[in-house]
Amino acid sequence: MQKEKEVSTNQRPLILVSNDDGITAKGIRQLVEVMTLLGEVIVVAPDSPQSGMGHAITIHMPLKIRKSDVFKDLGVEAYECSGTPADCVKLAKFHIFQNRTPDLVVSGVNHGSNTSISVLYSGTMSAAIEGAIEGLPSIGFSLCDYGEDADFSHTRSHIFKIAEQTLKNGLPNNVALNVNFPARFDKETEKENEIKGTKVCRQAQARWQEKFDLRTDPYGREYLWLAGDFINPDKGEDTDEWAVKNGYISIVPCQFDMTAYHGITHINKEWEI
Amino acid sequence: MQKEKEVSTNQRPLILVSNDDGITAKGIRQLVEVMTLLGEVIVVAPDSPQSGMGHAITIHMPLKIRKSDVFKDLGVEAYECSGTPADCVKLAKFHIFQNRTPDLVVSGVNHGSNTSISVLYSGTMSAAIEGAIEGLPSIGFSLCDYGEDADFSHTRSHIFKIAEQTLKNGLPNNVALNVNFPARFDKETEKENEIKGTKVCRQAQARWQEKFDLRTDPYGREYLWLAGDFINPDKGEDTDEWAVKNGYISIVPCQFDMTAYHGITHINKEWEI
Repeated sequence: MQKEKEVSTNQRPLILVSNDDGITAKGIRQLVEVMTLLGEVIVVAPDSPQSGMGHAITIHMPLKIRKSDVFKDLGVEAYECSGTPADCVKLAKFHIFQNRTPDLVVSGVNHGSNTSISVLYSGTMSAAIEGAIEGLPSIGFSLCDYGEDADFSHTRSHIFKIAEQTLKNGLPNNVALNVNFPARFDKETEKENEIKGTKVCRQAQARWQEKFDLRTDPYGREYLWLAGDFINPDKGEDTDEWAVKNGYISIVPCQFDMTAYHGITHINKEWEI
Repeated sequence: MQKEKEVSTNQRPLILVSNDDGITAKGIRQLVEVMTLLGEVIVVAPDSPQSGMGHAITIHMPLKIRKSDVFKDLGVEAYECSGTPADCVKLAKFHIFQNRTPDLVVSGVNHGSNTSISVLYSGTMSAAIEGAIEGLPSIGFSLCDYGEDADFSHTRSHIFKIAEQTLKNGLPNNVALNVNFPARFDKETEKENEIKGTKVCRQAQARWQEKFDLRTDPYGREYLWLAGDFINPDKGEDTDEWAVKNGYISIVPCQFDMTAYHGITHINKEWEI
């Protein structure tokens, strides 16, 4: 509580909130509520769900952006945008904020896990990565519960602490955090999951084993739904998947330099070009 | 020439071709033509342009896929898909190929540069990264010329060589290649660019400085176009940007483990959580 006071009595930091489930999702409301304890909040979020959008940006279509009343009850200025999460952060920085710079960019809380390889497909994380590209301390938050009415109550004090630590200690350059929370209740046992603590992790080397569900539309044309199973052959106990499966909050620091430096040596050594 | 023969007299490798400019783009035809010299080619590509789609996947909409005649003249089996480049690779692997496994996944040739940070926004590279996630040797090719009618002729022998070397020597696990070619002609001088060679590079630390072009539609509503300038403060001569700007083909080995390992130490040391 003392820390909460510390933050609020200093000059209030400016916090940009976005997400990928859309501005009316339950998860973003949780995040906005917690962020108002830490600073001045402005929301720029998609006007419709954008899950799975990865780091997509809108280049062949114009964008629309409108003021929104969604967070009026919290006294929070909000904008809804026709684009992707990455578009929202770009719009916030270069169109809405103009001469102000946010002290923190937060995205989520996503309805569903973004551990492991999901970081690549995640609109939630693309907003955070976009923030990091712009040189801003940025965090994506996700809950391992896909339900529209998921229970986020157990995440609130942890979101506060993680955001507060980020504001206080900063992050290394070009790094955004990917934070995942275990679901509040275990689906099988219906028992409440106990949060055992927080682990700073690496991204698990897991992947989706896809299945396509083939159907026929009312006009006789075939269509497919993407579906699949999550396969995790990575037995490491230092991964995000291990952490959330074992009752811990996972924090993975993520970078956007995708260079595989060891690959440079390999090619220079093995190839004839 | 000897090598070309070598490859074609052995059992012909199976090569999956995709892109993000759509199945009818000029760039993919170049790539398909070159790949037919190396193996049996199957094309699974988007039915419409998907530039800037990053690693988006289609989860809230069904996918449509149809056989296409676009490459009938080359004797190449082709499918066009309503989804993103990443969807195309998933569909190819899990729906079209089923019991066969491609020996190589190639994507492009993209109309436009995918150096530096563009790798995150690039649909071309998302197809290649998706291939790498599936454990397949994968390459994304891009030409630093956005023109629909861009001249790809100078890239063909290099594409052949790079694909051949990949088939022969493989790639490190979990690595896809991001290959960028200088444009054939210099825009300003209209002189032909001489290709000086190939450099294996790191991703330049550059970014887009966005501008939004605000307009009003015929109904009085405002809309914006994303536009901007590419800013490269990275003076390294080992980057992809340096290479293509100086007449070299750049090859960046890319990984999909986004963990910033140095960030783990930072947080464990500096944070109180």
